[in-house]
Amino acid sequence: MEKVKEVVLSCPIPIKQYPNVLLAHGGGGKLMHDLIEKMILAEFTNPMLDARNDSSVADINGTRLAFTTDSYVIHPIFFPGGNIGSLAVIGTINDLAMSGARPLFLSASFILEEGLPMETLWEIVRSMQKTARDSNVQIVTGDTKVVDKGKCDKIFINTAGIGIIEHKFNISPQMIQPGDILLLNGDIGRHGIAIIAVREGLEFETEIESDSAPLANIVLELLSENIEIHCMRDLTRGGLASALNEIAETAGVSILIEENRIPVREDVQGACEILGFDPLYVANEGRFVAFIKSADADRALTIMEKHSNSIKPCIIGEVVNKRPTPVLMKSKIGATRIVDMLSGEQLPRIC
Amino acid sequence: MEKVKEVVLSCPIPIKQYPNVLLAHGGGGKLMHDLIEKMILAEFTNPMLDARNDSSVADINGTRLAFTTDSYVIHPIFFPGGNIGSLAVIGTINDLAMSGARPLFLSASFILEEGLPMETLWEIVRSMQKTARDSNVQIVTGDTKVVDKGKCDKIFINTAGIGIIEHKFNISPQMIQPGDILLLNGDIGRHGIAIIAVREGLEFETEIESDSAPLANIVLELLSENIEIHCMRDLTRGGLASALNEIAETAGVSILIEENRIPVREDVQGACEILGFDPLYVANEGRFVAFIKSADADRALTIMEKHSNSIKPCIIGEVVNKRPTPVLMKSKIGATRIVDMLSGEQLPRIC
Repeated sequence: MEKVKEVVLSCPIPIKQYPNVLLAHGGGGKLMHDLIEKMILAEFTNPMLDARNDSSVADINGTRLAFTTDSYVIHPIFFPGGNIGSLAVIGTINDLAMSGARPLFLSASFILEEGLPMETLWEIVRSMQKTARDSNVQIVTGDTKVVDKGKCDKIFINTAGIGIIEHKFNISPQMIQPGDILLLNGDIGRHGIAIIAVREGLEFETEIESDSAPLANIVLELLSENIEIHCMRDLTRGGLASALNEIAETAGVSILIEENRIPVREDVQGACEILGFDPLYVANEGRFVAFIKSADADRALTIMEKHSNSIKPCIIGEVVNKRPTPVLMKSKIGATRIVDMLSGEQLPRIC
Repeated sequence: MEKVKEVVLSCPIPIKQYPNVLLAHGGGGKLMHDLIEKMILAEFTNPMLDARNDSSVADINGTRLAFTTDSYVIHPIFFPGGNIGSLAVIGTINDLAMSGARPLFLSASFILEEGLPMETLWEIVRSMQKTARDSNVQIVTGDTKVVDKGKCDKIFINTAGIGIIEHKFNISPQMIQPGDILLLNGDIGRHGIAIIAVREGLEFETEIESDSAPLANIVLELLSENIEIHCMRDLTRGGLASALNEIAETAGVSILIEENRIPVREDVQGACEILGFDPLYVANEGRFVAFIKSADADRALTIMEKHSNSIKPCIIGEVVNKRPTPVLMKSKIGATRIVDMLSGEQLPRIC
């Protein structure tokens, strides 16, 4: 009894208000941010974790290594433009790339639901290997668990990744300075809308394909051309809005973006309107924002354009001195509005 | 249609025989071995993976790193002697230790079921941090996902780990030679029986506690004392019997063990008899077998004894030239019997 009381009293999340974990605690918004910051990161605290990067960076015998992990619980497991396997490889490659690391090795850990069709597993395993090979990454260790029918949803995959940092920059929110330019490598919102369309059985005139794509090559070229990158972040759960809010908070700056510079495909915009979503908050799996020293912004844009297929990369805003609001947006009609963090979740199980 | 047919035809597991994943595909026996070997490892093939160690070992700029991962789906999540959190940290530390690596960094990735009591999560997070700190390991990166109620079983945890190899030995099944001595660091079967007892509501005169314990310190001391270790393996899923079969197959040798040298606590033996289990196949989480050059065996035993609490480490057998049977056991009554791999699973979701 004493033990139970002690656990309740010491819990950093108020148990009276949140006695149980909610879906929103995983949705990329404020509740998730609080759970992770106050309970998990605060308890595990150490300098590598406290840097709050997509990957953790360690110096081992003079070699700088990046280390990251993600679990994929996406529903449905196949979607236009990919599946849970390709996504699990791409997501971890991208987290490494966001530290400017060259991805080298991945682990792959499967939790399979009893009854999963064997050919489904085979197709997923094959796409993982293909995606890894395309980015010169090796899957070097793994694990497989099977749970009783009804105890997971078809298949969950965890990947962890190790990369090597060969550049001289310190890429982290702490490096961001007022005057830095924000570059975005393409249109936003396609991954989230592709998933929700399959899930809800929606049909559009054109099929909306996920934007999921590995980002290591584009980042490595920016670095090899000596572009001064201060920070990068891929725009997954919570989308562009959540990423910018988190970064602004960690960096102690404010960010000003312009709505009419942010590319959103017309079909995605239409789908968002029907579904009541704001594309700023929709998850992407092949999009990132880079905070670049302003003198290097044009050169960076030219390099990004080389790696883009259709919709062009663009400058979407700049970093300004800290204001009461972390993220502000000049809207299409010229007004300025606050871009807040979501409090709950918009789309659960999107990655 | 063509695509589907191609997937079916190319699948390395015969789909007619196994159209769906079975619980046994995760049970530590022959079916799991086949699934992992023929489908997953064969598709991802690369030299690091092909070494078939608990951890993968890479040379990066002259530093030898070990990398491993495991997902924990144990039911129940609390058991005598630990919980899913302590186990997730211990298991990955032990996989690193089995390569002779000094564990440095862990990742922690949570899949939470909507409705999980917040205090349960908090208790698990705290035991992870305590267990990591006790082994001088830092949890440096992580991920949290929440899935809808009924889409996972309370909580699944994945940990991946990085360790550094500071010794000069090549520790792998390929190094095993006829004449090597097998050392076991304690009694077997307690983890599995502790779990099943809670799961089935069984009560014994004394409570059977899981043997789960980190093995890094004992291994690092063996190495610092220059014990010539050829191979090590922790005895998790599938127990001692499966570990020895896998090693004998990879090493191309046979193994001869003696039943009356293998310590099994009386209460564990009794529980096994009631439940119809063979302790040789029951999972452990703090037990390992080391293949040692015979000249070093006595010194190794003395070091192991220093790290043991109650039941003594012991010599349980030796490596012999390859025979038709990978693992043979001299039974208590003096007969010799084959110790085969299980074909299915004995205890699912034990780790």
